[in-house]
Amino acid sequence: MKVLVINCGSSSLKYQLLDMTYKSVLAQGLVERIGISGSQLTHKRGDLKKVILGGLSSHSEAISLVLESLTNPKYGVIGNLQEISAVGHRVVHGGEKYASSVLIDDAVIQAIGKYVELAPLHTPKNIDGIKACEKIMPGVPQVAVFDTAFHQTMPPKAFLYGLPYELYEKYKIRKYGFHGTSHKYVSMIAVEMLGKPLSESKIITCHLGNGSSIAAVKGGKSIETSMGFTPLEGLLMGTRSGSLDPAVVTFIMDKEKLSADQVNDYLNKKSGVLGISGVSSDFRDIEAAASQGNLRAQLALNMFAYVVKHYIGAYASVLNGVDAIVFTAGLGENSISMREEIMRDLDYLGAEIDPVKNNVRGKQVDVSKDGAACRVLVIPTNEELMIAQETVDIVRCSFNASKGRTFCAS
Amino acid sequence: MKVLVINCGSSSLKYQLLDMTYKSVLAQGLVERIGISGSQLTHKRGDLKKVILGGLSSHSEAISLVLESLTNPKYGVIGNLQEISAVGHRVVHGGEKYASSVLIDDAVIQAIGKYVELAPLHTPKNIDGIKACEKIMPGVPQVAVFDTAFHQTMPPKAFLYGLPYELYEKYKIRKYGFHGTSHKYVSMIAVEMLGKPLSESKIITCHLGNGSSIAAVKGGKSIETSMGFTPLEGLLMGTRSGSLDPAVVTFIMDKEKLSADQVNDYLNKKSGVLGISGVSSDFRDIEAAASQGNLRAQLALNMFAYVVKHYIGAYASVLNGVDAIVFTAGLGENSISMREEIMRDLDYLGAEIDPVKNNVRGKQVDVSKDGAACRVLVIPTNEELMIAQETVDIVRCSFNASKGRTFCAS
Repeated sequence: MKVLVINCGSSSLKYQLLDMTYKSVLAQGLVERIGISGSQLTHKRGDLKKVILGGLSSHSEAISLVLESLTNPKYGVIGNLQEISAVGHRVVHGGEKYASSVLIDDAVIQAIGKYVELAPLHTPKNIDGIKACEKIMPGVPQVAVFDTAFHQTMPPKAFLYGLPYELYEKYKIRKYGFHGTSHKYVSMIAVEMLGKPLSESKIITCHLGNGSSIAAVKGGKSIETSMGFTPLEGLLMGTRSGSLDPAVVTFIMDKEKLSADQVNDYLNKKSGVLGISGVSSDFRDIEAAASQGNLRAQLALNMFAYVVKHYIGAYASVLNGVDAIVFTAGLGENSISMREEIMRDLDYLGAEIDPVKNNVRGKQVDVSKDGAACRVLVIPTNEELMIAQETVDIVRCSFNASKGRTFCAS
Repeated sequence: MKVLVINCGSSSLKYQLLDMTYKSVLAQGLVERIGISGSQLTHKRGDLKKVILGGLSSHSEAISLVLESLTNPKYGVIGNLQEISAVGHRVVHGGEKYASSVLIDDAVIQAIGKYVELAPLHTPKNIDGIKACEKIMPGVPQVAVFDTAFHQTMPPKAFLYGLPYELYEKYKIRKYGFHGTSHKYVSMIAVEMLGKPLSESKIITCHLGNGSSIAAVKGGKSIETSMGFTPLEGLLMGTRSGSLDPAVVTFIMDKEKLSADQVNDYLNKKSGVLGISGVSSDFRDIEAAASQGNLRAQLALNMFAYVVKHYIGAYASVLNGVDAIVFTAGLGENSISMREEIMRDLDYLGAEIDPVKNNVRGKQVDVSKDGAACRVLVIPTNEELMIAQETVDIVRCSFNASKGRTFCAS
């Protein structure tokens, strides 16, 4: 069964075609600068890389080009579109309605449309992508996999803010959390690695990249996460401030003469480790600068490690102890020194890194000291595989449901 | 040695006259509604209570009335003002300049004046109070005890926000923390109770009242606290929201058509447990409502306990374990059920409450289970005594310094 995974960003589109029989990637690629001059598609099949330049004005045009590439006689991987059994879409926001993935129909598209206000940059593009696939591949089942769904198991005491309750009722202002697919995927792998019953497991997952979030996963369910109403909350990130004293927002508006939109932009795009270091939003650049003695770069790294440590501690209390701390995503998987810095002086949790085992990048490894009660795990995330898997599960269930059965095929 | 402690709020003034030889309170009182119609002074000497109504238009007039009351032949406690050896003022903001209390002179008043921007409601009143005492009691040494000073030992990785570094340089936007006098006082008592060397002690102090903050105190020094640039950050409080996704601030402004000042007011005065419960900002009212089945009142209590637990966990990680968790201030000292709820399922820290010992209000008691590795302590705070003690220490040192000595008298 071949599944196409589509991830539409505000001006980009990532895709992967997976063969779910073998869980292998047949082809993958990225379309950049959609609707901006200089748009291009970079398509990869194994070691073969093909760049196609083109004036792509919409996500719909981008998807056409993706499908052409996948079926191209020279660098394609399938003979025709009929080989694609289903499409899985990463959808940024499922609000409170979707606590799991869902087979897309008109009602679902309409429901997703209601979350434009909560994720104005991404939601319209997600819908564009879905509609384009419907048009080009009519009848092929499509599944929405939400970035927020995994965190819908948070209890009200965790997801509500200290605001008048009416604001929650009126505007649904609450913590949603993001990166759900990643947190779900790595926490599942972690439970397998621990060899512990899922229901008894207490895992803290640290998805650390350009955007970063941490989650507390108890018995396989997210009970807390650091991103909130938007992906701005929580840790300082590449260019995002993370959590602030709310009074700082209006103080900056006043001092720098910024409108509400402008301060939002400022906190999302000019802050975080970029703002602190003055060097870059990319941790590799910052680590390089720090190693050459740049004090502000070192400060940015220290702040980042410190805030991760802070959340690990907070989530250990919410879980009443922790079985495993998982590092994933670009920085989590690849920065040996950052993992070491974060895990320094956390032996009160029974967690300690073995420096030799920790000397690893991008591999699934237990990097804990022998005998440590709390394991430290590096687990490469794979959101595309998770989306494809959820798509397969949903499509199987739905087909059965259409036959009048109430269970899913295995 | 008799010390007058003055605490000027925006429209109120609290005072205590202490005899520091015996650390006893000779008289105390409160002036309310200064500059508003219906101002009044409530003066207490032991069981004797005297209420004086009067049109007090300024903090200066309020201080005159306080001094008249203290020397009043009927309900006063001293024969004349010469008996007052020194005055200790609670000053809300000492910025980065003051990491400890200081003898007030013109330069100090000028320096404090620079923090009006950081604490616009309280700083001008603090200065008014100082100037009024200077005028009425010329030559009597006055000491400023800052609410922020104790937290000046926080390292940069803890006190900086994930904002462009220039904002810190330009406007000094950073975490300052408040309730410093209280956190210092109760953490000192806690170390005494533990009988552990100060340098090795790791304490988490929970100052829980209408305004609430938590601090991590290592070796007697604050290394982290939950209030930030202003007292709005951290826990949800009586009427304050506590920490939010920064994007929520501008979202509310947009939806509710509020200006920056209005949203600040909204988050400071209409949010917190008042906003969640819809009942009251007073935890006693909320506990009463919850016990009668009010679900939103119960939710407010759950949220509050949860966020305290969250910070306890975070600070345990910053400290790498914790020797004692201290509860103080109105709610922390008096709410048996709230302490129980906060400490539930924190045995991973080695902390457990003994329900029988915990059945206590407003007393200094170790309420931990026998043998628990981490102690849970109830310690009534006493900011006035702490201010008076700092005042005595400073005045003794300064007198010696004027004699050309470089050490303080014991």
